[in-house]
Amino acid sequence: MITIINIGELVGIVPSGVSVLKGAEMASMGVLHDAWLQIENGKIVDFGKMPGQAGHDGHPRHDRGSVIDARGGMVLPAFCDSHTHLVYAGSREGEFLDKLAGLSYEEIAARGGGILNSADLLHETSEDELFEQSMVRVREVLAKGTAALEIKSGYGLRPADELKMLRVIRRIGAAVPALVRATFLGAHAVGRGYTHASYVDEVLRMIPDAAELADFIDVFCDEGFFTVEDTSRILEEGLKYGLRPKIHANELAVSGGVQVGVQHNALSVDHLERTTSAEIDALKGTETIPVMLPGSSFFLGLPYGRARAFVDAGLPLALASDYNPGSSPSGDMRFVMALGCIKMRLTPMEALAAVTLNGAAALGVSAQTGSVTRGKRADLILTQPGWSLTRLAYNFTTPFIRQVFASGEQLK
Amino acid sequence: MITIINIGELVGIVPSGVSVLKGAEMASMGVLHDAWLQIENGKIVDFGKMPGQAGHDGHPRHDRGSVIDARGGMVLPAFCDSHTHLVYAGSREGEFLDKLAGLSYEEIAARGGGILNSADLLHETSEDELFEQSMVRVREVLAKGTAALEIKSGYGLRPADELKMLRVIRRIGAAVPALVRATFLGAHAVGRGYTHASYVDEVLRMIPDAAELADFIDVFCDEGFFTVEDTSRILEEGLKYGLRPKIHANELAVSGGVQVGVQHNALSVDHLERTTSAEIDALKGTETIPVMLPGSSFFLGLPYGRARAFVDAGLPLALASDYNPGSSPSGDMRFVMALGCIKMRLTPMEALAAVTLNGAAALGVSAQTGSVTRGKRADLILTQPGWSLTRLAYNFTTPFIRQVFASGEQLK
Repeated sequence: MITIINIGELVGIVPSGVSVLKGAEMASMGVLHDAWLQIENGKIVDFGKMPGQAGHDGHPRHDRGSVIDARGGMVLPAFCDSHTHLVYAGSREGEFLDKLAGLSYEEIAARGGGILNSADLLHETSEDELFEQSMVRVREVLAKGTAALEIKSGYGLRPADELKMLRVIRRIGAAVPALVRATFLGAHAVGRGYTHASYVDEVLRMIPDAAELADFIDVFCDEGFFTVEDTSRILEEGLKYGLRPKIHANELAVSGGVQVGVQHNALSVDHLERTTSAEIDALKGTETIPVMLPGSSFFLGLPYGRARAFVDAGLPLALASDYNPGSSPSGDMRFVMALGCIKMRLTPMEALAAVTLNGAAALGVSAQTGSVTRGKRADLILTQPGWSLTRLAYNFTTPFIRQVFASGEQLK
Repeated sequence: MITIINIGELVGIVPSGVSVLKGAEMASMGVLHDAWLQIENGKIVDFGKMPGQAGHDGHPRHDRGSVIDARGGMVLPAFCDSHTHLVYAGSREGEFLDKLAGLSYEEIAARGGGILNSADLLHETSEDELFEQSMVRVREVLAKGTAALEIKSGYGLRPADELKMLRVIRRIGAAVPALVRATFLGAHAVGRGYTHASYVDEVLRMIPDAAELADFIDVFCDEGFFTVEDTSRILEEGLKYGLRPKIHANELAVSGGVQVGVQHNALSVDHLERTTSAEIDALKGTETIPVMLPGSSFFLGLPYGRARAFVDAGLPLALASDYNPGSSPSGDMRFVMALGCIKMRLTPMEALAAVTLNGAAALGVSAQTGSVTRGKRADLILTQPGWSLTRLAYNFTTPFIRQVFASGEQLK
C-alpha cells in the first residue's frame, strides 16, 4: 500500500461509472484540496480530505506500506493518449530539414521522406530493433505522464510488416505497466508496388491475421489517400473480425470521414482540422468520440481543430499527441494540453478532461483509467509543490512532474 | 581542469574575434566530430579531435582534474537570452484564464491583469521576496541551458520600484554563475497616477539613478504606448548617462521604433512581429541587431517575425524568450530555437546562431560567451547521447540536457 498525504489539490475526480464527459461536463471533474489518496494492488482504493482539515471526509486507513508526502503538490490522472504512431524505424529529421528548405512534397518523397519511405526503412529493420527503438519513445512518454496509449500500425504497408508492427505493439504492452492498445492501420497509404485498388484488396486480406493482434481498425480517409467507399469496405470487413473502427478524417479536406465513421459506430474520429457544422451534427447523439491532434497542427502549420465549437455543441472531445516521425515528432501530452488551452481556447479543466478521461474513452479503457475514481488503476501524476491546473498550460515549458504512477508502479 | 572526451559533435565553433554572425554567416558555425574540450578557470582552454580519429588536431593536455565521458553526446554553446522580464511578483495565470474565456483587454485590466497590475503587485512585494520569487525562474532557465541573460525593469513604473527591480537584477547577477545584464525599462507603460506627458518626464528623471544599476535603456515604442518622439527623448537622456539603447518595436504596429533605435545606435531592436522592407533597409549597415521573440507570438497568437527575410537580407538575427508573466510565460530557449525552425523556417544551425552568439551580441557580451571559442567562458551544454542540432528542433519536447556549464561550473 502507498499513501500519498498532504496533496495540495487532488484533481480529476469522477464518480464511478462515468465513462466520458460531454460538452459542459468537461469542466466538471472534481477537485479536493488538502487531500490524501491510497493505492493498493495497483488501484486507487480511497481518497479524502486530510484529517484536521475543515470538511475532511475520512482518514487514511491504518498505515501499512509507504507514505509519500506530496508537500502541497497536485495529484491528477495520468494522461491517456488515444492516437499515436510511435512504433517506427529511424527518424524523419532529414525530411524536416527539407521542409525548412522549402522542398515540395514530391521532392521530399523523392529524397526519402513520407510514409512510404518510413515503410521501406521499417521493412529493413528487425523486429527486435524496432521494439528497442520504439521503447525509447515509450519510456519517454511514460516519464512525461502518459499511462495509457494507443499505437497504430501503418508503416508496414505489406502483410508481413504490418504484422511485425502489431507484434511489436503487443510486446510493448507486455513490457510496461501502461495500458497499451493496438490499432491496425494498414490503410495508412497505398503500399509500394500496389495499385490503389489492389492495395485496398490487400488490406482486406490482412484483416483476419491483424485481428489476432489488434484492438481497433483505422483508415486514413482523406483527400489523396482512401475514399469513403474504400473506408466503408475496410471497416465492414474489420467489424466482422471484432475490430471496432477509429478513423483518420478531415486533416487535409472535408473528407466525409466523420460520417462514414459514425455510420460504422467508430470509437473515435480523429484529426478534424477541417470541419463544418455537418460534422458536428453527424456526431451528436452517437457513441463516436471526436479526437483532435493539436501537435500536428502546431508542427505542420495546419489549422487547429475547432475544439470550442465541438464542446459548446455538447460533444465529448479528446486530445491526443499523434506522436509520429512526419507530422508530430512529440508525444508530450502536457504540451498537447497546453495547446488545447493556448490555441484552442479550452479551459484548463476542459483540456484535462480531454487528455485523461475522454482520451481513455477514445481508447476504450475509461472503465479502468483516466480519472481519480475508487477502484480504477492508480495511473496518476504527482507534481512538484506550487502547481495548479492552470499553470500546467500557462507555464507550459516549466518542468512539473515529481512522480508518475502507472498501475501504482512508480515510474519516475 | 575539466576534460570532456568522446564528444559526438562539438557544435558552435567560431573563431576568436567574431562578435556576431550576419545573414549567410549564421549557417557557418563550425562542427567537430569525435572531439574533446578542456575547461580551466571557467574558460574554454582548448578543443580538438579525439586521438586515434582521422584528422585529429591535438591531444588533451596531461590529465589533471576531472574527466567527463560525453559518450557521444553533443556539446554546444549555452543559450544567451537577450530579452527577458523575469523579475516580477506573483503570476498572471488568472489573466490567462480570462483571455481563454474571451474577455477584452479592458475587462482583463479591470480584473487585475496587465502591466499596471503587475506593477501594483510588485509595489506590495518586498525586495527580498521579489528576489526569491525571481530566483525560482532564474534557476529554471539555467537548468534549461541559459548561461547569459538580460533582465528588464518595467514593472515598477515609479522611481522607488524601478530601482528595486534593478537592485534585484544586480543581486541575481551576483548569485549565479550566469552573465546577467540589466536594462532600465521605465518606459514600459504609463505608471498609475501619471499623465502620459508627466510619466515621460518622470522616466527622464529616473535615468541618473537607474544608470548606476543598469547596463541598457529600453522603451516600449509601439501603438498605444510610447511615441517615436518620447522614445528619442528618453534614449538621448539615457545615452548621456552611458546607457546604450535596446528597443521594443513593431509588436503591435509598424511603429517607427526600428528607425528611432537605429538613429540612436541601439544595441538591439526587439519584437518585430510587424515589419516592412523599410525596417530591413533601416538596419542594413548598422550595428543594431534585430531580435525576434517567437515565444510571445506563440502564446499570444501574433504573427511570427519574418526571420527568413531578415537573414536573407544579410542581417544578423537573435532570438530571445521574452520570459514575462503576460505574453510569454516561458524562458525555454530550446523551445525558442525550435520555434525559429518550425515557425520561422530558420535552419537548425541558423537558429543556433540566433540563440547563442547573436543573442550574446544583443546582450553586449559576445566577446565573453556565445560560442565554442578558446578563451571564452565555458558556457556549454552537454547533451545526452544520440542528439543532433536538427533533433533539438525536430523532437522539440524530448529532454536532451545531460549537463549545463556556466563559466565552467556544473549546474545540472
